[in-house]
Amino acid sequence: MHVDRSTPVHRITDVTVTSQLIGDFADTFRTGANDKVIATDTQKNTVYALARRHGVGSPEAFGLLMARYFVDGFDYVSGARQEVTMDGWDRISTTEGGPHDHAFTRSGSEVRTCVVTKHGAEETVISGLTGLTVLKSTGSEFHGFPDVPYTSLAETDDRILATAVSARWRYTGTDVDWDKSFTSIRQILLDRFALTHSLSLQQTLYAMGEAALETRPEVAEIRFSMPNRHHFLVDLDRWGLDNPNEVWFAADRPYGLIEASIVRDDAPPAPGAWEGVKGFV
Amino acid sequence: MHVDRSTPVHRITDVTVTSQLIGDFADTFRTGANDKVIATDTQKNTVYALARRHGVGSPEAFGLLMARYFVDGFDYVSGARQEVTMDGWDRISTTEGGPHDHAFTRSGSEVRTCVVTKHGAEETVISGLTGLTVLKSTGSEFHGFPDVPYTSLAETDDRILATAVSARWRYTGTDVDWDKSFTSIRQILLDRFALTHSLSLQQTLYAMGEAALETRPEVAEIRFSMPNRHHFLVDLDRWGLDNPNEVWFAADRPYGLIEASIVRDDAPPAPGAWEGVKGFV
Amino acid sequence: MHVDRSTPVHRITDVTVTSQLIGDFADTFRTGANDKVIATDTQKNTVYALARRHGVGSPEAFGLLMARYFVDGFDYVSGARQEVTMDGWDRISTTEGGPHDHAFTRSGSEVRTCVVTKHGAEETVISGLTGLTVLKSTGSEFHGFPDVPYTSLAETDDRILATAVSARWRYTGTDVDWDKSFTSIRQILLDRFALTHSLSLQQTLYAMGEAALETRPEVAEIRFSMPNRHHFLVDLDRWGLDNPNEVWFAADRPYGLIEASIVRDDAPPAPGAWEGVKGFV
Amino acid sequence: MHVDRSTPVHRITDVTVTSQLIGDFADTFRTGANDKVIATDTQKNTVYALARRHGVGSPEAFGLLMARYFVDGFDYVSGARQEVTMDGWDRISTTEGGPHDHAFTRSGSEVRTCVVTKHGAEETVISGLTGLTVLKSTGSEFHGFPDVPYTSLAETDDRILATAVSARWRYTGTDVDWDKSFTSIRQILLDRFALTHSLSLQQTLYAMGEAALETRPEVAEIRFSMPNRHHFLVDLDRWGLDNPNEVWFAADRPYGLIEASIVRDDAPPAPGAWEGVKGFV
Repeated sequence: MHVDRSTPVHRITDVTVTSQLIGDFADTFRTGANDKVIATDTQKNTVYALARRHGVGSPEAFGLLMARYFVDGFDYVSGARQEVTMDGWDRISTTEGGPHDHAFTRSGSEVRTCVVTKHGAEETVISGLTGLTVLKSTGSEFHGFPDVPYTSLAETDDRILATAVSARWRYTGTDVDWDKSFTSIRQILLDRFALTHSLSLQQTLYAMGEAALETRPEVAEIRFSMPNRHHFLVDLDRWGLDNPNEVWFAADRPYGLIEASIVRDDAPPAPGAWEGVKGFV
Repeated sequence: MHVDRSTPVHRITDVTVTSQLIGDFADTFRTGANDKVIATDTQKNTVYALARRHGVGSPEAFGLLMARYFVDGFDYVSGARQEVTMDGWDRISTTEGGPHDHAFTRSGSEVRTCVVTKHGAEETVISGLTGLTVLKSTGSEFHGFPDVPYTSLAETDDRILATAVSARWRYTGTDVDWDKSFTSIRQILLDRFALTHSLSLQQTLYAMGEAALETRPEVAEIRFSMPNRHHFLVDLDRWGLDNPNEVWFAADRPYGLIEASIVRDDAPPAPGAWEGVKGFV
Repeated sequence: MHVDRSTPVHRITDVTVTSQLIGDFADTFRTGANDKVIATDTQKNTVYALARRHGVGSPEAFGLLMARYFVDGFDYVSGARQEVTMDGWDRISTTEGGPHDHAFTRSGSEVRTCVVTKHGAEETVISGLTGLTVLKSTGSEFHGFPDVPYTSLAETDDRILATAVSARWRYTGTDVDWDKSFTSIRQILLDRFALTHSLSLQQTLYAMGEAALETRPEVAEIRFSMPNRHHFLVDLDRWGLDNPNEVWFAADRPYGLIEASIVRDDAPPAPGAWEGVKGFV
Repeated sequence: MHVDRSTPVHRITDVTVTSQLIGDFADTFRTGANDKVIATDTQKNTVYALARRHGVGSPEAFGLLMARYFVDGFDYVSGARQEVTMDGWDRISTTEGGPHDHAFTRSGSEVRTCVVTKHGAEETVISGLTGLTVLKSTGSEFHGFPDVPYTSLAETDDRILATAVSARWRYTGTDVDWDKSFTSIRQILLDRFALTHSLSLQQTLYAMGEAALETRPEVAEIRFSMPNRHHFLVDLDRWGLDNPNEVWFAADRPYGLIEASIVRDDAPPAPGAWEGVKGFV
């Protein structure tokens, strides 16, 4: 937790950092030689010290700062992977005094994510968000799927569509206004989710990603992992009650998990940049 | 999930109901006689049917509806306990069209809670909220505690104060504008958290509860369960860095859990109303 | 984590302690006076110091040790509530050397629990376990429940019965061989779950509790909280397949939660001993 | 949940299946055409039907059965990825009658895992386990790490070593006695964890993997993800108490996560087989 106290109106930045170093560490595993092991505890202290020296800023900027510190500073560290997630906080607005100088409330379960990978001089930034739960109470159909063996699902032209969006997008470079780009892409995703008349969660997902690529030239590709949070219409027929799409049961399991990558045609390749990114192939 | 489709501008109500019935069910346990067992599955169906017949409205109104249905309708059901929690959803505001008719996003991890207890004609309503995480980056002290054996904590006159508020309040009756009362109490809690200069989380808690009782005469008592989410200032001295309350470590465990009841002097008693309410004695 | 290294064959004890003190602490809340606040940090240190001085032993013995330390040592502490949970570890048995001196594996998700309450000289011990998941693949019926409105569940004379047992039992005194009593009661619960032909989870629960009271005179009462982990037989009829109780779907929600107390007729009362015990009224 | 009732001594198999199909499904995303979408609900029904027709057997056998069903049966399905996890159950042993015919208890939080990938005729099986928590109370050192900036960790020649093992191993083919191979590898991992005098968790991990490859020729490579569950010795000096490695604090965060692959020199390649496997690059 970093508190910017440079004015009486505090700004707080709440991040969790996962620091991984890349290099020839085979002997560490094979012989127990620890002379190249920058200890977990040391990496933790480095996070604190760099935050004190430079502040945190955006997750992307801090991830790059960490990666450069390690890759530039240690000859046996050839690369680094820094994951930075940020929890959001809103300023409390009080009845008596409006927005408060130093009191905050957690904005929700949504988390902003970032993975910086650096191999020598080559740097890749993947930003994203997770835990953005959205729902449409109409404007969603699902039909036309094949009637293969063991099919029993009924077709529908009006269902609830709900999902928790995890999205990650890779930038073409590092000369980006990170906060501005994040805010814009998040709004694009919400716009397309709300305004697309949905024929499937797959089609909605694609519309969200396509719009992000079309609007933000700094984005090379975008990936989604979106569980279908099925809502089933409750059948009240046997008790003489109709149910015109009013009362639904939100099922936990089983669920469909829809995932896809949408890549700009001329996107530069980034081998390995997606390795180990949770929830994505 | 109830969808009010009476106009094109949908309203959604997302509740989870726990239904418990009270009566002389000893034989069920002793002999396996099930003739008084209103099955889990039946109680579930009743939730759906009543939601279809009457809508959901507020958690309090729906809890009372359920309790009255069971206690008035079955002679071997002498009482009921209905717990209704509500997840919040905000309307998505799109760039093109502003607030959307039927697209929503989950507001966060905060949940509105309600427990209705009915014994014969006597009804008690306890409302509340949980998961309201708040933080002050200054305006919080902690000192003056006794230096008994095994004390090593340093005193401080400027620390981060953070907690996740669980609050439950009991109403004096059932003739209440539930939504209005809830909204007002929630704001009072935020106001007092933000505006109280804190000498301890205990003192802040009391200020929050006292203000609720003073402002809302319909509230008989209020209880809190507030874990102290300790933030420790990182010591960077050994590397020649100061740390003027800027970089903090948010610790998971151990933590202090501060709990208290604040009861109006002339509050009517409600024996048993708090039984089984999670997180509260 | 306490390691008994008195012989090369180490014994480990893995406990989590929740320490609460009882007294007139109203001023702490009302005025912010902290002179009676034995800080969270101090109570934590006390756990470590007492563990070093006396070892941990059983959860019950350690809870009593903690409670007596605080109640006897501080005149403004009139009572204490100490909750001690213990995670189990099994010794690893190696191919080459059999049971290992100092290597262990976690036994599972089951946890042994204990709550010690002390008001002045009066001490109450409630022991228990949680997370003991059990299942019978036959020998369980459920029928005879009333066909009230909104009933649609079919009767069955052969179903899967599954639950996660949380049990807590109160002792009549403190002169008990805690480990021996715990081991015996745990086995009684398993025996009765397995050997009772079940007409309902309620009836099974009662049989488990009755046997514990009949066998262990040191137990005054026993309480259970047992969620019905419903398994539904999958209907494969439409594809010409029968399903003679072979393929089941384990549903998450909704579920029935069966709870009861079974009290010995001449059990001494223990007002307040159950307050704040999770999952129990 | 599959119950084998072919004899009065029931055998139960408790699996969770994740079914994913591979093919040219771009139109589904781009246009909302669902004619190639084998619905979630259909895939779920297929799991049940195949379990009824063929039983479950081992996770590996069932994963292969599912993959072959889809790839061989649908011309627009070119590949499949089937993940099968299995929860363990032990037979309850009763006091009166010994091992019970049809009563079971969950063995713990450990889960057996399996990922089957099939591209056309090419099949790859990756088996594993997760949630195997192990601890050594001595026989573990950690020193010799470099004293780079921000290092403050003290060297030690006697610490607690604890981790939760996630392991996944890829087989060279599919002609394997799955259950026998699994049981053997699990024991090898436990043996090596217990019997290796540890200079670091990295070195212990490698010893575990090397032994698996040396003993089981059917294994091509093995990967581990092992969080270092740090236990810190409590400093009781200020109260005049020593602490000869007896009382420890188990910290939650931050922690080191040790991961590695150990590959047999002549292992056949398996491009893409590890994609999307949780917790592994």
